[in-house]
Amino acid sequence: MKCEVVAVGTELLLGQIVDTNSSWIGEQLAMVGIDSHYQTKVGDNHDRMVAVLEQALARSDAVIVCGGLGPTQDDITREAIADVMGVELVRDEEIVERIRVMFSGRDREMPDNNRRQADVPDGAMVNPAMPGTAPGLICPLTGDHDGKIIYAVPGVPWEMQQMVTIGILPDLQQRAGITSVIRSRTLRTWGQSESGLAEQLDDEIRRLDESGEATIAFLASGWEGLKVRITAKAETGEDVDRALDAEEERVREIIGDIVFGVDDDTMESVVLDLLRQRGLTFGLAESLTGGLIASRLTSIPGSSDVFRGAVVPYDRQLKIDVLGAPDIAAVSEEMAAAMATGVCATLGTDVSIAVTGVAGPAPLEGQEPGSVWLAISLDGEISTNHLVLPFDRDRIRQFTCIMSLNLLRRRLLGTD
Amino acid sequence: MKCEVVAVGTELLLGQIVDTNSSWIGEQLAMVGIDSHYQTKVGDNHDRMVAVLEQALARSDAVIVCGGLGPTQDDITREAIADVMGVELVRDEEIVERIRVMFSGRDREMPDNNRRQADVPDGAMVNPAMPGTAPGLICPLTGDHDGKIIYAVPGVPWEMQQMVTIGILPDLQQRAGITSVIRSRTLRTWGQSESGLAEQLDDEIRRLDESGEATIAFLASGWEGLKVRITAKAETGEDVDRALDAEEERVREIIGDIVFGVDDDTMESVVLDLLRQRGLTFGLAESLTGGLIASRLTSIPGSSDVFRGAVVPYDRQLKIDVLGAPDIAAVSEEMAAAMATGVCATLGTDVSIAVTGVAGPAPLEGQEPGSVWLAISLDGEISTNHLVLPFDRDRIRQFTCIMSLNLLRRRLLGTD
Repeated sequence: MKCEVVAVGTELLLGQIVDTNSSWIGEQLAMVGIDSHYQTKVGDNHDRMVAVLEQALARSDAVIVCGGLGPTQDDITREAIADVMGVELVRDEEIVERIRVMFSGRDREMPDNNRRQADVPDGAMVNPAMPGTAPGLICPLTGDHDGKIIYAVPGVPWEMQQMVTIGILPDLQQRAGITSVIRSRTLRTWGQSESGLAEQLDDEIRRLDESGEATIAFLASGWEGLKVRITAKAETGEDVDRALDAEEERVREIIGDIVFGVDDDTMESVVLDLLRQRGLTFGLAESLTGGLIASRLTSIPGSSDVFRGAVVPYDRQLKIDVLGAPDIAAVSEEMAAAMATGVCATLGTDVSIAVTGVAGPAPLEGQEPGSVWLAISLDGEISTNHLVLPFDRDRIRQFTCIMSLNLLRRRLLGTD
Repeated sequence: MKCEVVAVGTELLLGQIVDTNSSWIGEQLAMVGIDSHYQTKVGDNHDRMVAVLEQALARSDAVIVCGGLGPTQDDITREAIADVMGVELVRDEEIVERIRVMFSGRDREMPDNNRRQADVPDGAMVNPAMPGTAPGLICPLTGDHDGKIIYAVPGVPWEMQQMVTIGILPDLQQRAGITSVIRSRTLRTWGQSESGLAEQLDDEIRRLDESGEATIAFLASGWEGLKVRITAKAETGEDVDRALDAEEERVREIIGDIVFGVDDDTMESVVLDLLRQRGLTFGLAESLTGGLIASRLTSIPGSSDVFRGAVVPYDRQLKIDVLGAPDIAAVSEEMAAAMATGVCATLGTDVSIAVTGVAGPAPLEGQEPGSVWLAISLDGEISTNHLVLPFDRDRIRQFTCIMSLNLLRRRLLGTD
């Protein structure tokens, strides 16, 4: 079973919008065991859309078309599919009614244009998920393309994602005769290179190649570290979860405490959870990172029961005036330590991280960009670290942010 | 002249990497007046790559292939192009030498694998730009595709961008017979919807349609507002700049002070420049946004000569203890005003923004998520604003960030 993806929209070709939908769909297809060999972007042009769909059907068994289901005259995916199917569009009054109800739920009248969204190619079905006003279409083909299928979904990512998850992937698996359950679990790691991880897991990957119990893939995620994705297949959900549990345990044994979280965990959510479990309050003194760490922590709902606040003493004098640090070099071990102690006192917190350094591009106090001092105050004890980062301004700040949170994580776990 | 884009890499199909290169190339092609009707992603598979290239050549005059020029066995773009051209690969010893020099410049020995990167299809040329170890290829076709051309560039974005800019766009323009100079200027706006802007500029766009002096396009950029891109074409660079100047003036007259910057300006860079021009120092009291505004300001090199620092009094008690606010409701006009005054005193700044509000998802002090109070202290005078934002947590924070900076910008300009 091969399924390809067609993204529709002139704005995609013009680079006004980056097509992240195709990537997301490609990832989902791979995870449920469906091959996908081509992805195409085409503009809002009837003939070119028809040509692209015809070609996709000639080389694949299924096509997911993304975009062009809106209410405007530009939205012609419905028409193009009907042409490929060789049928007419039929207005589905039940769908008109569903759209009308959605508008009235938002206290608005349905514009007449939106009726077009209820046009369905004769013989097609509507996707069971319909989170927005654009119905998704499930279009079985006959004739030359007999047995093949086109799925149409809107370009709005959260609408598209629900329709793919609920109405398309299970259908594709059934058509492919895949009765087994495939699931993945992602271990988030920080502090090891891809080649280093690959070397550590080399024997285990080779063992899995033979046993077929699971597969392991590495996904880079920039500053946020590497993801190790374990995928397993089994007859039932229980069996597959058991296989994932067993493999997660083996991988953790091999790569150790560089695993900081699982699936949706982030470095900041993990640190907040650890602080919460120990009933500790937390504060920050951020010079170099200038509010970046605070901003990431407060992006997490519920952070306020742990995180009390931050001081950003960007000017050296504020390190002295607000945090009570001595009148010494701004980028030094002593300054970082004094900031960590001072911010616990100023904000009344149990724990703190303090950051000071040179973000660049110009040197500061005779130190080159990338020179960073970190201090952590925990249980009244200060630990410090010096980083020398060969990066540009943005990466120096981002790297320092995640590095400092990881150091706090390790101290909270007692692994440092 | 039609040019399409082919992105090569199995990791693109699997969704491990989002293909931003095609979007960037599509944008560049549009800006220099070259049509592009299709973009295709294909995996690292010889036969499928050849099929995709053949098809692209059948419907377009030129193809830019992106990726697959690296030194590993997966990198087979060179071979696929040679097959399409019906020629052999020839190792270019001069290129081998250039790659070797690059490695020795980094104090490393060239691995043997990298010799493969010097393989060039017989009859092809090397792109004049070669910022990395992967040469770009310029491959004129004969036979069935006589007069058409394939350009190959590496998938590394900054290498690709240099090669497209220096070695491909001018060549495409020449082939298309475009001798004129095309340039764009982007006006950054904030505070008006796309339909509102389109309405305001409707007459001017119609006038331009007839006169052909320039074109206007709207580009959405999320929280960061709308971009109005003016594009002009003329015989010389001087003429085109003159046309852009004239059109910028007309557009600014029509849409007024919602234009906050031009091209690479950001809201924060503009605010910092305005403060710098007036010799004012700046500080922040960020509760709701939790360091986000500070983080954005400090991401700009040189911000330290204006920005002294911030207090993030996430806990209500810190608003009182650190900023000297009275013991009142955390989300109120009085609290925002007291925070703005207090932070000027605590940090010793001339100007401040204070933000307090409910980010959600839960209500706070009986107020719903999205209720936000802003205060600005400037020249000793406080102004306040109340926002009610029907967004989720992330968008409430992001919107408040840019909204507050825009309010300060307008006060600094005296337009509020």
